[in-house]
Amino acid sequence: MDDKKLNLYTQIFETPLYELEEILEFIHPADVLDLINDESIEFDRTVFLNRLPDWFLTELMNEEEEEDKVELLNQIAQSKHKTIIEEMASDELADMIGAMDLDQRHEIIANLDDEDQQEITKLLGYDPSTAGGIMQTEFINIYDNKTVGKVLKYLREIKDDVENAYTLFVVDRENHVKGSLTLEALVTSELDEHVMDIMNPNIISVNYKMDQEEIVLEFEKYNLALMPVVDDDNKILGVITFDDVIEVMKEEATEDILQLGGVHAEETVDSSVTDTIKSRLPWLVVNLFTAFIASSVITFFSDTISQVVAVAAIMPIISGIGGNTGTQTLTLITRSIALGELDDKNLWSSWLKELGAAIFNGIVLASLTGVLSYFINQNFTLGILVGIAMILNTLVAVVAGFFIPYFLNKLKIDPAISSGVFVTACTDISGFLLILGLTSLFIERII
Amino acid sequence: MDDKKLNLYTQIFETPLYELEEILEFIHPADVLDLINDESIEFDRTVFLNRLPDWFLTELMNEEEEEDKVELLNQIAQSKHKTIIEEMASDELADMIGAMDLDQRHEIIANLDDEDQQEITKLLGYDPSTAGGIMQTEFINIYDNKTVGKVLKYLREIKDDVENAYTLFVVDRENHVKGSLTLEALVTSELDEHVMDIMNPNIISVNYKMDQEEIVLEFEKYNLALMPVVDDDNKILGVITFDDVIEVMKEEATEDILQLGGVHAEETVDSSVTDTIKSRLPWLVVNLFTAFIASSVITFFSDTISQVVAVAAIMPIISGIGGNTGTQTLTLITRSIALGELDDKNLWSSWLKELGAAIFNGIVLASLTGVLSYFINQNFTLGILVGIAMILNTLVAVVAGFFIPYFLNKLKIDPAISSGVFVTACTDISGFLLILGLTSLFIERII
Repeated sequence: MDDKKLNLYTQIFETPLYELEEILEFIHPADVLDLINDESIEFDRTVFLNRLPDWFLTELMNEEEEEDKVELLNQIAQSKHKTIIEEMASDELADMIGAMDLDQRHEIIANLDDEDQQEITKLLGYDPSTAGGIMQTEFINIYDNKTVGKVLKYLREIKDDVENAYTLFVVDRENHVKGSLTLEALVTSELDEHVMDIMNPNIISVNYKMDQEEIVLEFEKYNLALMPVVDDDNKILGVITFDDVIEVMKEEATEDILQLGGVHAEETVDSSVTDTIKSRLPWLVVNLFTAFIASSVITFFSDTISQVVAVAAIMPIISGIGGNTGTQTLTLITRSIALGELDDKNLWSSWLKELGAAIFNGIVLASLTGVLSYFINQNFTLGILVGIAMILNTLVAVVAGFFIPYFLNKLKIDPAISSGVFVTACTDISGFLLILGLTSLFIERII
Repeated sequence: MDDKKLNLYTQIFETPLYELEEILEFIHPADVLDLINDESIEFDRTVFLNRLPDWFLTELMNEEEEEDKVELLNQIAQSKHKTIIEEMASDELADMIGAMDLDQRHEIIANLDDEDQQEITKLLGYDPSTAGGIMQTEFINIYDNKTVGKVLKYLREIKDDVENAYTLFVVDRENHVKGSLTLEALVTSELDEHVMDIMNPNIISVNYKMDQEEIVLEFEKYNLALMPVVDDDNKILGVITFDDVIEVMKEEATEDILQLGGVHAEETVDSSVTDTIKSRLPWLVVNLFTAFIASSVITFFSDTISQVVAVAAIMPIISGIGGNTGTQTLTLITRSIALGELDDKNLWSSWLKELGAAIFNGIVLASLTGVLSYFINQNFTLGILVGIAMILNTLVAVVAGFFIPYFLNKLKIDPAISSGVFVTACTDISGFLLILGLTSLFIERII
């Protein structure tokens, strides 16, 4: 056990219960989770958790990863469940319930009071990868006719309900939202100033249907700690805070990286063997299938290969470098699409740039490959043909690497998942076809 | 011009100057930057910028991307530069100066007052990818003997210096930091409460040398809007806010994705042709070199190929699927290393899981490949050998895909940059060697 965990362990087990409350106020729940989730440390977690007050258990539940919340809850005494569930942040509760099987789900929901039931059912109805699926429904409204002093007084009164309240929303008597007010603006304004005069009437918000990737771009652009989620009539449904965004960014980046590498978006180092197989085998089988198609091109040229065996050693070089070139382009394009950096404005110029770079790189690679293969095989014509095949395949690669992700995205198919297999199928097939085709065309000059 | 931009354009050009100030308070600088940076809209940017007050220009400069700040500054009247530069957030100023060439750098620094000069020189001294290189030096200290009411009064007095102040730091008379106090805790506490009693004495901080990837993990763990950066004696040097972290996350994810795809970390769709070539050609040449090494294995078996031409069509399948299998493992391992999810505790279990999945997938792929190649070539022995080569190469792939990134990371080499070329070199060489070696061993049974 490292010092930090040991310290925490001792504090929580050895502090008398009546003093524990005060200590816990300044302990971050994430550190307690670190201790609980460290499987290398043996102790009775149920006894440990039973020492903690309900409010801290609620914070632990809010803080725990989506997929581990239920497990944590099951370690906590049944008698405390109701209180904890009622107090949990709505988005965290929805995440937990969303990860449960249907039976468990019904049981939990049935135990909630009517209002919470409605709210959770509504939250569960949103697509989890949209603003509605990420937002929490707890936010603070203040009336537009109040002064700063009054608002501060009000916040002290509702103290226990203030959490992640980086920004307050100013509403009129009919609950129409008029503006937003950050805590920073609040604490730097004079007590007698009216909320109306210091609020920001231009609220930056996101629609509840907005995809989480776009939400990240909005947060990044505006550097806000909190953004309201609105319905089609601009009514606030909930809020998203920066820490949700950090979570989404991590998730999205991991998904893109894994999918580009041919791994299922949700695989982790701790996935089971079965999940790992399920995550990877389909992709490998698809690749095997395209590899056989590419290989059939080779079969077609058996005669050429038996006459010029050297070409068998050259083929994989042409197709391999084509694959690398295509992957470079597809990686850049896929990432640019995800970041919203490729649009109709720079599509043409970035295509020209890709093409220019491919031509230059193609010439360099073709020269190197041609010269090397000339020295290896001592055959001038073959050297020339190798060079030509290389440069042409580089061009195929850049076309495939650029337009395959571009069009997949237009078709609303995630280019990170599917581009790779198409691009390398193209470069393999064309690579084999080019070098074998050219060789068979000029075979009399070679042998 | 879209509606939003048109609206902004009209507002800024047509509002009388004395009213503009008030309007600007509620316009987000990011939206103004969108307008200025949209090259498809023609208007005199210098005239436009000249209408804006200094404080708003400063916000624009703070908001603009690192690499574009100088360009923006140059469009602003020279007479305003001094004020703007003095008012810019220290981290943004350091970023701007860091991106300049040495001559410009000296000119800017020479124009600063002594204190700012010292501060900037110090900031420029930190590695840009560490906490020191990201932090801003503006943060707010409050004394530990003050009450909440006094602190609120103080914040109103220093109003203009309060920016991104999500958390305040409580210090004693000797400026030793005693605790932290979020604005949320401040506004929900009674006015006569003492700061000492409501502050959090357990400050969560990062050392100034901490790498930005680790900082992201800390923010993610603790969900804080702001974290102090401390020196080795735990003295606060500056603060990092969530928006810096969002920026870093985007940068790090992009770097990893691009590098895994063989593209330089800093390439974008808008890079020049020259930069694109520089970003990609070296990687392609390294791959060409390893492709020739792998190809030399084939050359070694020319006799075998001329006797069993079918094997030429099979080799790329074995090596290709090996490459895919290795890439899957290396992608997962590289990402897990970046997320801090792979450590000595789960190294062994995740290796066993990789191995298990590779054996299973290998058997499935080997069976498919063996059977297909049996039907294509009508040769039973060749079918068996193809299957054996496939499964063995899958094992090579998982060993390479797992341990190459693992050991590169141990050697402090970023596995995202360099693993790919090694892994595919391994699977190519071993793929060719296995199928050609086996074929030549059993050639008498095949022909």
